[in-house]
Amino acid sequence: MPAQIVDGKALAASIRSQTAQQVQELRAEGIHVRLDAVLVGQDDAAVIYARSQQTRCREVGIDYHFHALPADSTERDLRTFLADLNRDPSVTGVLLNLPLPDGVDTAAVQYGIDPYKDVEGINPANIGFVFYDCPIIAPCTALAVMEILRHTGCDPRGLEAAIVGQGAIAGRPTTLFLLQQLATVTACHEATKDLAARTRHADLLVVAAGVPNLIRAEHVKPGALVIDVGINRITSADGKRRIVGDVAFDEVSEVAGTITPVPGGVGPVTVAILMRSAVEAARKQHAGRRPIS
Amino acid sequence: MPAQIVDGKALAASIRSQTAQQVQELRAEGIHVRLDAVLVGQDDAAVIYARSQQTRCREVGIDYHFHALPADSTERDLRTFLADLNRDPSVTGVLLNLPLPDGVDTAAVQYGIDPYKDVEGINPANIGFVFYDCPIIAPCTALAVMEILRHTGCDPRGLEAAIVGQGAIAGRPTTLFLLQQLATVTACHEATKDLAARTRHADLLVVAAGVPNLIRAEHVKPGALVIDVGINRITSADGKRRIVGDVAFDEVSEVAGTITPVPGGVGPVTVAILMRSAVEAARKQHAGRRPIS
Repeated sequence: MPAQIVDGKALAASIRSQTAQQVQELRAEGIHVRLDAVLVGQDDAAVIYARSQQTRCREVGIDYHFHALPADSTERDLRTFLADLNRDPSVTGVLLNLPLPDGVDTAAVQYGIDPYKDVEGINPANIGFVFYDCPIIAPCTALAVMEILRHTGCDPRGLEAAIVGQGAIAGRPTTLFLLQQLATVTACHEATKDLAARTRHADLLVVAAGVPNLIRAEHVKPGALVIDVGINRITSADGKRRIVGDVAFDEVSEVAGTITPVPGGVGPVTVAILMRSAVEAARKQHAGRRPIS
Repeated sequence: MPAQIVDGKALAASIRSQTAQQVQELRAEGIHVRLDAVLVGQDDAAVIYARSQQTRCREVGIDYHFHALPADSTERDLRTFLADLNRDPSVTGVLLNLPLPDGVDTAAVQYGIDPYKDVEGINPANIGFVFYDCPIIAPCTALAVMEILRHTGCDPRGLEAAIVGQGAIAGRPTTLFLLQQLATVTACHEATKDLAARTRHADLLVVAAGVPNLIRAEHVKPGALVIDVGINRITSADGKRRIVGDVAFDEVSEVAGTITPVPGGVGPVTVAILMRSAVEAARKQHAGRRPIS
């Protein structure tokens, strides 16, 4: 029996609709949700992405402000600019688009964003609060994975889970989330010796390796829930460019119980979660900050 | 063949001797290593522990200052006191002994310690920097496990590891460390259904569950390295009180290749690492702080 396919676009639409509602409710309380996006230079892909951010914000009623900074901005310039956004109480969320210019320490600039305005949830303090199970804002891709899990009705407690790929954006924060919800997690990556032996017992398989077609039918327990976080741009045999995940969808969807497609799975959910996190950021700043060193 | 037994006391002595050397070297550069310990109230165990801290500091040449605060100190009092230690440039390390009085939010007070002076490595920002593989100061028990691993000559890359117990002090940070060093990690805990099935393939078994005799021979792969982080105070059948780990030492030491005893294993190494971290803290503050939001 072929797997059920998770409709990421529909799930994203439902999250957006809840988020739009929350924006209205906050407005009624006098809280204005605003997201300030920063782009340095004119990287084509980043400009396109920034434009789509604007559309997404408009859809849910978030006030989007775009700041294009010169390509020759220094680390000091960027840190000063972000510090001003941190101090401005009308700014409730900050999104720093990458890449930054050569010679700029990306992490040092990114981590300068106030944890309460860090809508991507990547500040080290935000990671630490996820680790301690009291998040302020958490990494959005891992939140999207957890949202899909909830949507499918899957209870993580005691679940056998395997996560393939342990990058800082998706795999590793998902590992933390699943451990907090008491799944038994096997964390795999490029140094794992017999990958299929480690993934075949998993009722939940999350793949965030960045390797097209890495996961084949042989890696998957029959009936498992397979969540594919991979977004890989490849050129097919017919010369066409397309986007594929890390999972060989055609053969794995014959084995899995439920599967997320690429595109149309984790991707749109992550974008919707980012908007939701921007709203959460505004709400939490208003509710009062907890002390952070 | 019975397992090799790791001599934690000897390893600790060797770390202490290196640490004493580092204190001397820093002194020659004009850097004075100092640790300020704070105890609130008169909890007997905490007083005894504080006294042993002083002895440990003296052994390696760290200037130890003890602050006994009244049992009725409020959260505000404690935060103010720690903020003063943060601001004082002569204070290079701060250690807050637990428990804190009822009604005080322990985490809120603990996390108020400057990450560069947080010798236990528990501040959320410090956890985040461990997650991002660029630690300032890391959690000391997990550092002790990694030190034992190094001491036994075990290379984590590609190693099958199982960690039993995912608490914030030991199990979870050890999971992060082992993932960074590219071990394949199976993270188990109280909700894991078939524990032996998850641990029996592991070449490295780290146990930090806080349950006496949890790990029996059947849980252990022949020849594995078993690191027992548990410290449990029990009363034996003969009425005597003693300290045991989470591993049934007698039977597991017949199966394992190498094993740490309790007491005399991870415990003394952790205490030695804490002293080493106090020295690292002083060195890093002097070398210049990286920007932290």
